[in-house]
Amino acid sequence: MASKPNAIVAQSGGPTTVINASACGVIQQAMKSGKIGKVIGAINGILGVLKEDLFDISAEKPETIEALKQTPAAAIGSCRYKLKSLEESKADFQRVLDVFKAQNIRYFFYAGGNDSMDTADKVNKLAAEAGYELVCMGIPKTVDNDLAYTDHCPGYPSVAKYVATCAAEAGKDTEALYTTDTCTILEVMGRNAGWIAAATGLAARSPEDAPHLVYMPEAAFSFDKLVGDVREVLGRLGRVFIVAGEGLKDKNGKYVTADSGAFAKDSFGHIQLGGVAEMLKAVIEKEVGIKARFNKLGTNQRAAMHFASATDVREAYMCGKMAVTYALKGVNGKMVTLVRAKGRDYKCSTGLAELRDVANGEKKVPRDFINDKGNHITKAMRDYLRPLVQGQAKITVGKDGVPEFMRFKRKPLNKKLPNYL
Amino acid sequence: MASKPNAIVAQSGGPTTVINASACGVIQQAMKSGKIGKVIGAINGILGVLKEDLFDISAEKPETIEALKQTPAAAIGSCRYKLKSLEESKADFQRVLDVFKAQNIRYFFYAGGNDSMDTADKVNKLAAEAGYELVCMGIPKTVDNDLAYTDHCPGYPSVAKYVATCAAEAGKDTEALYTTDTCTILEVMGRNAGWIAAATGLAARSPEDAPHLVYMPEAAFSFDKLVGDVREVLGRLGRVFIVAGEGLKDKNGKYVTADSGAFAKDSFGHIQLGGVAEMLKAVIEKEVGIKARFNKLGTNQRAAMHFASATDVREAYMCGKMAVTYALKGVNGKMVTLVRAKGRDYKCSTGLAELRDVANGEKKVPRDFINDKGNHITKAMRDYLRPLVQGQAKITVGKDGVPEFMRFKRKPLNKKLPNYL
Repeated sequence: MASKPNAIVAQSGGPTTVINASACGVIQQAMKSGKIGKVIGAINGILGVLKEDLFDISAEKPETIEALKQTPAAAIGSCRYKLKSLEESKADFQRVLDVFKAQNIRYFFYAGGNDSMDTADKVNKLAAEAGYELVCMGIPKTVDNDLAYTDHCPGYPSVAKYVATCAAEAGKDTEALYTTDTCTILEVMGRNAGWIAAATGLAARSPEDAPHLVYMPEAAFSFDKLVGDVREVLGRLGRVFIVAGEGLKDKNGKYVTADSGAFAKDSFGHIQLGGVAEMLKAVIEKEVGIKARFNKLGTNQRAAMHFASATDVREAYMCGKMAVTYALKGVNGKMVTLVRAKGRDYKCSTGLAELRDVANGEKKVPRDFINDKGNHITKAMRDYLRPLVQGQAKITVGKDGVPEFMRFKRKPLNKKLPNYL
Repeated sequence: MASKPNAIVAQSGGPTTVINASACGVIQQAMKSGKIGKVIGAINGILGVLKEDLFDISAEKPETIEALKQTPAAAIGSCRYKLKSLEESKADFQRVLDVFKAQNIRYFFYAGGNDSMDTADKVNKLAAEAGYELVCMGIPKTVDNDLAYTDHCPGYPSVAKYVATCAAEAGKDTEALYTTDTCTILEVMGRNAGWIAAATGLAARSPEDAPHLVYMPEAAFSFDKLVGDVREVLGRLGRVFIVAGEGLKDKNGKYVTADSGAFAKDSFGHIQLGGVAEMLKAVIEKEVGIKARFNKLGTNQRAAMHFASATDVREAYMCGKMAVTYALKGVNGKMVTLVRAKGRDYKCSTGLAELRDVANGEKKVPRDFINDKGNHITKAMRDYLRPLVQGQAKITVGKDGVPEFMRFKRKPLNKKLPNYL
């Protein structure tokens, strides 16, 4: 009797607080389905597939798998290795299929953003052409919340809750010490979409509350505008708390950090995003003549399990679980989406979108979520966000007062193919 | 009949998560003592005293006062205005006394660090010389944990718990994405003392766990050493997570950021601490040839009420409460200290230290709390820290998923003196 087909789970791109919850949903649902042999983890995403660096997740302890729900980042390992078109990355795509065949993998669950959905779509096409029976399912993941066809992306609600809390807290600090530290800039992630910056607006319940200014890549930014905005808030409150998305752009859509010496490039010559806070600080100190300081949460914002959204963890798990449920029902080539029910009470279920549509789509903050001045959010944004950040995710705090996270043992699968990469 | 004497509460210097809990202890204890008239808040610390910018805290709603325990930063307002010697700042000191007399203030409760204890001590001396009956009590406050004569400082346990958690979480992120982002640097506060950096070491429960390297100002730092340390960890794990206190110094005790162009000075020409992460990133990328990124928590670390230590909140409240209790028993010119009982179980009570001793003291991380290589902590540090970070402080989360904080109405007291400053 032929053994049951195996399933592979891979995580891709920048980690989130809940991508492990999605993995947990896939693993637990696959293991209890009775229709799947091993659940295999691809160490460091598609790199693990290419290198045949795989491990048997189903051999891990059940409590380790359960603890995925309480562990941030990507426990199976992630990477930023990008496969291009089927022609340009032909050898890579063929290798993926060869590894799947060698390991009897018939289900491919891939959690990631646009690029990952693109990869999953192309692997799926190649398998179909080759007559290899394979089901490819995408699971949405990105703190940036910029995937189309889904109401929101797992990972976003948690970063939203955390950065809004950070803005409220650091805002209190600025309010307390404004006679010295008059301006604070909180830099948050978001290269092309301002969803994370927008989320901090939730903390501004009154005009006195931080943040007073929220800059998102979707609204054209200029330093003249910044200086004017800062002066206006200073005149009113004597202090100013600013949130800046890392990818602010001018009216021509050019990154404002791209042309500025020290901030422009990283050591590899790439344009280095994330220098926006330093730049705003320098401009405000010079032009407005007040002391400014900045907080840059960096990867801490996308890893803040200790104050993650319980709603997010639940929905991320649901996405993983439903990916398996759909796959076993014969669905193929789709990404699971989150669908918000119409009506006053928040209800969220799952739907499906074509992998290739998601790969080609992008969802920015709608214009009506941003105020007319382009420096804060509107009620529409608040209404969108509020249900997503409800509840605090469960964590386990150790005897040392610090949260405890799991780590897989990663029992390696025997390699069946020659080395690659 | 003469009205009861009033008490004034002031907060000074960089805010903490729990300085408001100390204020709450003072206010509630003073109000229920029956021996004190108004409890007066000095808006923005000593500046509020000098300007006679005062408000009647006892007129605030009891629930607002109670909510101080859940609100970070300094709700009465803080400042960095420094009084020098009695000779140099003679007019200021005289003004403080004049305001106290005009407002019938006989109790001065001052929460702050060394400088604040110095100020309180001098005000006390001047009052004695002038024959003005005044009780001056200090309440310890600093995230830096560098006050002498106290086992630890309220504010430190919360920042410790938070930065250790941040290191654990961002460490998981680096572990997940090390194939691209191989090195992460977490910059934390601490100009002269490495207590905050040291606290992150708590997260490293196993050699695989972040942080792998912890640099504190107490251990001489060099970039050669850094490069060697980074290479060692990379060889072992393929990734490296580094914590750097902002005030790293070389073997001559000179700040490593002081001599380095863009990082050296802020817009006012002061040496700008806090650029250490950028500098480490640049050196590691150039010398080791791996990508490095940095997280700079900034004021968020000292305002992180959402994951504060319950032990810290309780002890901070106790310090404020005991300051009043001692004052009403006739104690004067002292700072309340925290005294850890000997023995296996953690017990903490309060003691007293001379204001002038605290003003002149400083407590750095002891050498035996730092490992021989000067790049991590020892068991002694863990043992010291563990009891302090126990429990999560109570917070109230709003319907919008974000913690709610109080704000005083600040009903101003009538000014009785001419303007000053």
